[in-house]
Amino acid sequence: MKLARMCAAGPDGAEARILVADDPDAGWFDVRQAERLRLQRRGATPAAARTIASAIVPSSMAAALGGGDAFLDAARGALEDPSGDARVDGAPALTNALDPSAYRDFMAFDRHFSTGYKLLGREVPDVLYELPVSYFGNPLAFFGPEDTVPWPHYTRRMDYELELGIVIGRCGANLTPDEALDHVVGLTILNDFSARDIQGREMQGGLGPSKGKHFGCATGPWIATLDELDPHALRMRARVNGETLCDAPSSEAIWSLGELVAFASQGERVQPGMLLGSGTCNGGSTFELGRQLEPGDVVELEIEGLGVLRNVLGQPQEERWWPTAKTATGS
Amino acid sequence: MKLARMCAAGPDGAEARILVADDPDAGWFDVRQAERLRLQRRGATPAAARTIASAIVPSSMAAALGGGDAFLDAARGALEDPSGDARVDGAPALTNALDPSAYRDFMAFDRHFSTGYKLLGREVPDVLYELPVSYFGNPLAFFGPEDTVPWPHYTRRMDYELELGIVIGRCGANLTPDEALDHVVGLTILNDFSARDIQGREMQGGLGPSKGKHFGCATGPWIATLDELDPHALRMRARVNGETLCDAPSSEAIWSLGELVAFASQGERVQPGMLLGSGTCNGGSTFELGRQLEPGDVVELEIEGLGVLRNVLGQPQEERWWPTAKTATGS
Repeated sequence: MKLARMCAAGPDGAEARILVADDPDAGWFDVRQAERLRLQRRGATPAAARTIASAIVPSSMAAALGGGDAFLDAARGALEDPSGDARVDGAPALTNALDPSAYRDFMAFDRHFSTGYKLLGREVPDVLYELPVSYFGNPLAFFGPEDTVPWPHYTRRMDYELELGIVIGRCGANLTPDEALDHVVGLTILNDFSARDIQGREMQGGLGPSKGKHFGCATGPWIATLDELDPHALRMRARVNGETLCDAPSSEAIWSLGELVAFASQGERVQPGMLLGSGTCNGGSTFELGRQLEPGDVVELEIEGLGVLRNVLGQPQEERWWPTAKTATGS
Repeated sequence: MKLARMCAAGPDGAEARILVADDPDAGWFDVRQAERLRLQRRGATPAAARTIASAIVPSSMAAALGGGDAFLDAARGALEDPSGDARVDGAPALTNALDPSAYRDFMAFDRHFSTGYKLLGREVPDVLYELPVSYFGNPLAFFGPEDTVPWPHYTRRMDYELELGIVIGRCGANLTPDEALDHVVGLTILNDFSARDIQGREMQGGLGPSKGKHFGCATGPWIATLDELDPHALRMRARVNGETLCDAPSSEAIWSLGELVAFASQGERVQPGMLLGSGTCNGGSTFELGRQLEPGDVVELEIEGLGVLRNVLGQPQEERWWPTAKTATGS
């Protein structure tokens, strides 16, 4: 099963609608509409059906996943409904599949990160082989397919990062890798856009990155449920303006999907709608290839079974303010 | 005006209620109840008043702040209501003031961070004086006053961090420091609990910290609106089991409140319910004092005008799984 979202115009402006498909090429179904019609067939008034269906199938994918089986049953029901009443006309323009409740990004592909450290003239820290080290990203700056991603005024070195996005569907804490897989609802493509120049400066402080990352990520075009995929055997490709720059297998990750989710859950709860990034696959950014992106470039990420996530880089924003350096106050 | 939350029991379990006070010692008012009664006095049916008041004054403080003036007017209205019908009996047990939509933590106090780097035997990176460097924390693990904060199984070195919490009330991007102040609704106490041993390991990788931080933060007991305070002249104190370990002024920050918020907004949007941490004030953790915390310790943070935030450290959790180191796959 694939879950996605589209924007539908309405009297109160555009609203995200959750869609479901078995085969996206064969068409999408509107889950709230299917649920609303199902409720009416079972005796609900139109007004009550609208209220209940909106609660079970909200606009937010993270909120919907928070509904657990109530939501997943509605999604499956929409697929199995023989009437076709909830079929979406044509090929809808999909928006970001997930508005995550929180976002944590790992580094599971060691040729990517070891190349990065070498290019910075630094030793690869041992801890990256000892623990699946991660950082938290900005959950409020997610873009979707075909969106133009803003180019912050403070960078000249914009980059993409091709990652597997792991979507949590169920709460859990202190899980083992085996248990952890039951808490994953599915996978999506994740583009963790990066501003390399400021990222390098920030990481000298040993924390973040922050401004190097938090202006925007993209997910989509859809979330495929875990039963449809082998996360450790997926072909991952990146193209810039049509030129293939990366073609790597997900099997090269040094940490398994179960290990990443289990580690995320140590000492804290993973929760529905959380997004975990696998980290950039080997060769999955321009930085490590000696290439560079320009405003207007078209970045397409493709992962087997997960579709193509296409974004355009915007024009650099205008600088209105930037910090002036401070002096130490003495210790 | 002070905003807080309490938990109220109901037929569907405990629910957070937003409270408002001018002087917490003189009592709190339930904002949703005041708004519901106000709507009824203006002709709403009891059922409609309940629905509308729940939308304007939800349980989530971040969601409430997203309502902008509609929510702030309701809060002010509850304070000004002469009837006293929405007064809360006695001194309510307050819960976490803010369930943040996102959480970014800065390092604005240089004697704190320079001491930290020196204790780790590292040079203080220049970038910490050039930019207000930050990282994102876990918005889904916030505790409140009197809560027991979990002690993750993977640490022996638990610490507190005494910080000023800056609460965003209005959207904005690429702001100047002057403009930025209009986007802050108020301040609260923030305890950014830290697991020092794993934090040190993670930061060798140049990113995060993650497991060193994301098991829990605490905020509260209330948010005071910015008009009531001078954020650059507040006395900040920390006590462990009644012993005062820190008594420092907020004036020692090298970055102003406006600079922190303005920097947060560069290239991205600050949004209602976002929490920005000032970073630990000078002397505001045990790490830099050569002290150490134990399970069961009581940590009290106090900031002038913002009350006292008291937490107890839990007993160490049981380890069920931990990663085994990997070997490099070769580049």
